[in-house]
Amino acid sequence: MEISKIGEFGLIERLTKDINVQQSSTLKGVGDDCAVLSYPDTRVLTTTDMLMEGVHFDLTYTDLRNLGYKSAMVNISDIFAMNGTPRQLLVSFALSKRFTVEDLEMLYEGIRAACQKWNVDIVGGDTTSSLTGLAISITCIGDAHEEDIVYRNGAHDTDLICVSGDLGASYMGLQLLEREKSVYYQQVNELNKRIKEAKADGTYDAKLETFRQESTALKDFQSDFAGKEYLLQRQLKAEARGDIIERLREAGIRPTAMMDISDGLSSELHHICKQSGVGCRIFEKNLPIDYQTAVMAEEMNMNVTTCALNGGEDYELIFTVPIGDHEKIKNMEDVHLIGHITRAELGMMLVSRDNQDFELKAQGWNHMNSN
Amino acid sequence: MEISKIGEFGLIERLTKDINVQQSSTLKGVGDDCAVLSYPDTRVLTTTDMLMEGVHFDLTYTDLRNLGYKSAMVNISDIFAMNGTPRQLLVSFALSKRFTVEDLEMLYEGIRAACQKWNVDIVGGDTTSSLTGLAISITCIGDAHEEDIVYRNGAHDTDLICVSGDLGASYMGLQLLEREKSVYYQQVNELNKRIKEAKADGTYDAKLETFRQESTALKDFQSDFAGKEYLLQRQLKAEARGDIIERLREAGIRPTAMMDISDGLSSELHHICKQSGVGCRIFEKNLPIDYQTAVMAEEMNMNVTTCALNGGEDYELIFTVPIGDHEKIKNMEDVHLIGHITRAELGMMLVSRDNQDFELKAQGWNHMNSN
Repeated sequence: MEISKIGEFGLIERLTKDINVQQSSTLKGVGDDCAVLSYPDTRVLTTTDMLMEGVHFDLTYTDLRNLGYKSAMVNISDIFAMNGTPRQLLVSFALSKRFTVEDLEMLYEGIRAACQKWNVDIVGGDTTSSLTGLAISITCIGDAHEEDIVYRNGAHDTDLICVSGDLGASYMGLQLLEREKSVYYQQVNELNKRIKEAKADGTYDAKLETFRQESTALKDFQSDFAGKEYLLQRQLKAEARGDIIERLREAGIRPTAMMDISDGLSSELHHICKQSGVGCRIFEKNLPIDYQTAVMAEEMNMNVTTCALNGGEDYELIFTVPIGDHEKIKNMEDVHLIGHITRAELGMMLVSRDNQDFELKAQGWNHMNSN
Repeated sequence: MEISKIGEFGLIERLTKDINVQQSSTLKGVGDDCAVLSYPDTRVLTTTDMLMEGVHFDLTYTDLRNLGYKSAMVNISDIFAMNGTPRQLLVSFALSKRFTVEDLEMLYEGIRAACQKWNVDIVGGDTTSSLTGLAISITCIGDAHEEDIVYRNGAHDTDLICVSGDLGASYMGLQLLEREKSVYYQQVNELNKRIKEAKADGTYDAKLETFRQESTALKDFQSDFAGKEYLLQRQLKAEARGDIIERLREAGIRPTAMMDISDGLSSELHHICKQSGVGCRIFEKNLPIDYQTAVMAEEMNMNVTTCALNGGEDYELIFTVPIGDHEKIKNMEDVHLIGHITRAELGMMLVSRDNQDFELKAQGWNHMNSN
């Protein structure tokens, strides 16, 4: 259905009709000039992200449901990264005419699924049109007690550096998708070339049926992603690590500094060290890397450590804890000790597998530069 | 300067370096995963808007400073429309390669100017790239005491309907700008046609100097907007009516329902009547219309009442007050009584100058439909 058939108000009504408020802090959600929220005795956390078609996502290989899910999750992840609890979400999107009401419902379904996972309420937003493509802007609001909030600037000398999950898989997933996309377009181009030649040499009519079959086959192009599902899942459907936050709370551990890994481990470590006025020393052999990530890096002739350090979009947590918490943290499920904080003058170092020291470069996943 | 020269982090640093926190509720602004805000004993209000180049603004006649100012003001206006106080702003933008660092500084300067006017803190955002054009997404956060918040659903039979400022001027400003733009392009096209003809008939060299002069004159094309400045100002540089909110508080008046007029008076009245379960009766002769709006409507052969009802982007306040407040409100500066609330079964009526009743249509300023 074309969106113009039901108009902006009709679309908003349709997308938001099933929203049930879950948080006691949500007093009034969608439907007025503002949402009304209540936060007695706590601190409010806010974060926002903007995602543009062609820059942050490519609809040739992301479906709209996964895109919605990921868009919401990356904001929820920022609230967890402050050791807070996500509560409300504001969702804005701008879309060109090629999108239908059903498309938007898919996108919204993904956003809702991410919100439901963490009991987050959608309380407002804006829906408008765009001349080209899809733009998504999401703001997430959460809360935390003052004493629980973890900033980037609290890391101290001798603190342990921990990372949840594994690194580099999302980046390898993106490489895989882009490779498949280029294979696909190569096949399309080759077919077009052969059709052109056949038209030129008069054999087109004779070959028509073959061309038709090949063209249909290309439309149904399905890549063989067997054995690489984890990489795709990591790229297409991020998960915020609220489970790690819960685990830390249960264990009575309050990190001294924390961030979520969106730009890449190396870039985030630079933020923490710079803001905390410290250095760090991390060990290559301790970087958590999934088997599929390693295989794919090998296949693509890429250095897997570089991918883990600079790939980005992992949405895992990097945090530091006092060395006194070593016993509590060392066996925590899905948490990995990768090194420790040092005095600033020792710099930011990566110790390689063969025990050599390398300076850690802050090569972030920079959308401003890469486009 | 090209943005790639300083990168995303450099750009953010440059844009946010002069931000001084003004609100005691802003505990931590830009620079971490989230901003940290504190709202003891009050309610938090949030609103968000997305503005797309070519849909919501046209950079051929809006400068970036005014655009930034307006983008922030329309969100601030939503907080006032709930009878709240704006406190913090989150600013995201996506921009294509044609924008420079200086452009972004202009845009940000406008946003900052709007924030400074109402002591609002910029506490976060996102800066990223876009394949085409500029996209701006702004979220504003404010607060209010529970008992002060004014929703859309509180209007009662016999309440008076009030509007601040005047209506339709912003819409006429837009018409004026679009007319001038089309005059400009018409002149450009005519010159190009004459150059083409001169090349064809061999007179090009002889006419070259004339063409050069005309081309230079076109580059310096300045419209004569004398006597129409107010219309342009209303279109290009919206102002949120926090002064009216203050005036109402001082007079001890709490509106029963309130909205800001973004889609047009008629559309907003429909929201209020639908959500409050009432009807309304407004009087054409009472609609506040500026002299320049009336002159311009005449010049363009448009019905000025239609412009005032459906033009949109006025960012004035429409609110209802109990009839007992009549004495207090009737002489309030820049506030106009335009009619009263009725029982729902009487419908939504406009009484014309010659005392005829017309049904009020909800013809909003619908970006979804109009594009």
